[in-house]
Amino acid sequence: MITEIDQRYMALALNEAKKGLGRTSPNPCVGSIIVKNDQVIGRGYHKKAGTPHAEIHALAAAGAESRGATLYVTLEPCSHTGRTPPCCEAVARSGVARVVIGMEDPNPLVQGRGIRYLLDRGIAVTSGVLEPQCRQLNWPFIKHITTGLPWVVMKAGMSLDGRITYNGRQTGWMTGGETSAVVHRLRDRYDAILVGAGTVLIDDPALTTRLPGRKKGRDAHRVILDSGLSISQRAKVLSGESTARTLIFCSVEVDTAKCARLEKRGICVHRVERGVGGGLDLHQVLRQLGEQGISSLLVEGGAKVHGSMLNQRLYDYAHLFYAPVFAGENGIPFQSGYSSSGRDTAHRLTEVQYRRCGEDMMVSGKLMYR
Amino acid sequence: MITEIDQRYMALALNEAKKGLGRTSPNPCVGSIIVKNDQVIGRGYHKKAGTPHAEIHALAAAGAESRGATLYVTLEPCSHTGRTPPCCEAVARSGVARVVIGMEDPNPLVQGRGIRYLLDRGIAVTSGVLEPQCRQLNWPFIKHITTGLPWVVMKAGMSLDGRITYNGRQTGWMTGGETSAVVHRLRDRYDAILVGAGTVLIDDPALTTRLPGRKKGRDAHRVILDSGLSISQRAKVLSGESTARTLIFCSVEVDTAKCARLEKRGICVHRVERGVGGGLDLHQVLRQLGEQGISSLLVEGGAKVHGSMLNQRLYDYAHLFYAPVFAGENGIPFQSGYSSSGRDTAHRLTEVQYRRCGEDMMVSGKLMYR
Repeated sequence: MITEIDQRYMALALNEAKKGLGRTSPNPCVGSIIVKNDQVIGRGYHKKAGTPHAEIHALAAAGAESRGATLYVTLEPCSHTGRTPPCCEAVARSGVARVVIGMEDPNPLVQGRGIRYLLDRGIAVTSGVLEPQCRQLNWPFIKHITTGLPWVVMKAGMSLDGRITYNGRQTGWMTGGETSAVVHRLRDRYDAILVGAGTVLIDDPALTTRLPGRKKGRDAHRVILDSGLSISQRAKVLSGESTARTLIFCSVEVDTAKCARLEKRGICVHRVERGVGGGLDLHQVLRQLGEQGISSLLVEGGAKVHGSMLNQRLYDYAHLFYAPVFAGENGIPFQSGYSSSGRDTAHRLTEVQYRRCGEDMMVSGKLMYR
Repeated sequence: MITEIDQRYMALALNEAKKGLGRTSPNPCVGSIIVKNDQVIGRGYHKKAGTPHAEIHALAAAGAESRGATLYVTLEPCSHTGRTPPCCEAVARSGVARVVIGMEDPNPLVQGRGIRYLLDRGIAVTSGVLEPQCRQLNWPFIKHITTGLPWVVMKAGMSLDGRITYNGRQTGWMTGGETSAVVHRLRDRYDAILVGAGTVLIDDPALTTRLPGRKKGRDAHRVILDSGLSISQRAKVLSGESTARTLIFCSVEVDTAKCARLEKRGICVHRVERGVGGGLDLHQVLRQLGEQGISSLLVEGGAKVHGSMLNQRLYDYAHLFYAPVFAGENGIPFQSGYSSSGRDTAHRLTEVQYRRCGEDMMVSGKLMYR
């Protein structure tokens, strides 16, 4: 039975887990709390792949007091030896009397084996406490571990009339400072950011993470779709100003010598087949990113990339920012290439959330394809 | 000096005033509260043009107790004889010791004369209490009384990509039931609703007000822009199902016999000159509506009307509703004809308010032209 007390402590474990957001990939964010006599005696979270898991930190903090205590953990303790030994063994050894779990580990190597291990050793187990919240925290991990593909998120900032420029390709800010801060906080949480060659050509973005108050962000890897390998050698995304990698996907038709020149500068160039509509095979791009351990991808445009992704149903989630301005019909629509035949076939957002960002509005939701 | 106590009672007077919203045109919405020994001893609001003003109702409720009391009123008491005698005389006669006013009456026939009258009779007067809120309640009245033109509000419901249809002219619901309820509550507050002939052709709307729970709405007048007088004789807006008038504006070039046929059915047909861009002269349309006592106008589209109104800077305010759906590039953009050259010239919304309507988002704000 799931009690309110269990939910309250799981919420604390969730707060622990969130401290690792954007830092644990390809591992999940996990938080743990140890409770004895209604007192929190230990807490911990997973900080980085290759380092101890959340439960291990929490057990270390609680020490010998763990005996007879209840351990809360947002994700089922692992049962396999990865870069660290199985957590369920350490949990059993600690002498905790009960383990409360947010969600089962979707990792095919675990999937209930951690719970089984604990039950077999006489430890009481309750699972599924605040499960939706625990799942949401790890949408990227869940998708990546089960499909090999990254969790793909559309990001666009536009006018009230859905334009990303005022007049043709001419650039100019639309959304305000508050939105910009939110975007940089988002970037800080994704493994990689993707843009099309057109965006590099028009905006020449650095795609780095700049957090307010000079707090150190962690740059996401930068991914460019550039079928003809046409972007300028001087583009900011190719510069060495970031500690993150730059990956370019071009068509198999591109001359290998041209690729080699970029590779010499430390840029990873991947040649992929053409897909639906003549552009790069986006599914192949995502698969290659997934294979490189990228579990979350923020796609920042431009219009053609958004249109192709929508058409091929590759987006999992969207963050759209609306500035209270009318750009007018000479502005570039935020997507091109996607169209619907009517109400019953149009792609939608579901579990929509609206949030004000200064003067702008942020619309977020899961993609629902019909 | 404006005290917190004054603001608290003025807020009560504002609540009274709001009861008249959509019912007092061409008069303003006004509310009044009478307070003695920190007790509300009378309240009232203006219900309908030609009937007693708010202060008169409040004074009647308070009776002889008014002597020595404080009267709160959202708008300066009138000093002129209209369809009812001047309120400032009744206020002075009642023996109230002090009058607290939200805003001066912008009516050129009053404009401070009511306050002067009270001061001359030894009554203390404080003005400007919660003035922004009092003004906002009467934006239509203020514009109409000072310019002769109605307060013009853009209303559009669209997809996340700014489209009002999914595929060409094919219709189909976008926004949801909650938005629909909000739109009908809006309609209930405006003197008139305007649409273009294209919208009548595609959607054939009745443009009546349907409030939830079968509460009786009051239909706004229906205004159609139809330069060639081309809409079907069977269009719902021409039917007699509403108690409100239907006004059609067509070009002076239209055959008068054609106009006469509609006029025989009780439709008011106005022939106006062509204006900027070859469409009807919208300024002339607004002037004629203002002359007929229409002080607020809700413009529900379609795209051409919104574009022309934006281009000619005729909108005062906007209510935009976004459904969480991607209509795609075959959908009709919510406006056509308006374009901006860049950030510094694009029309904006200011004092923006965002409000969730079910799954949809409502964006409201004052138009700011540059």
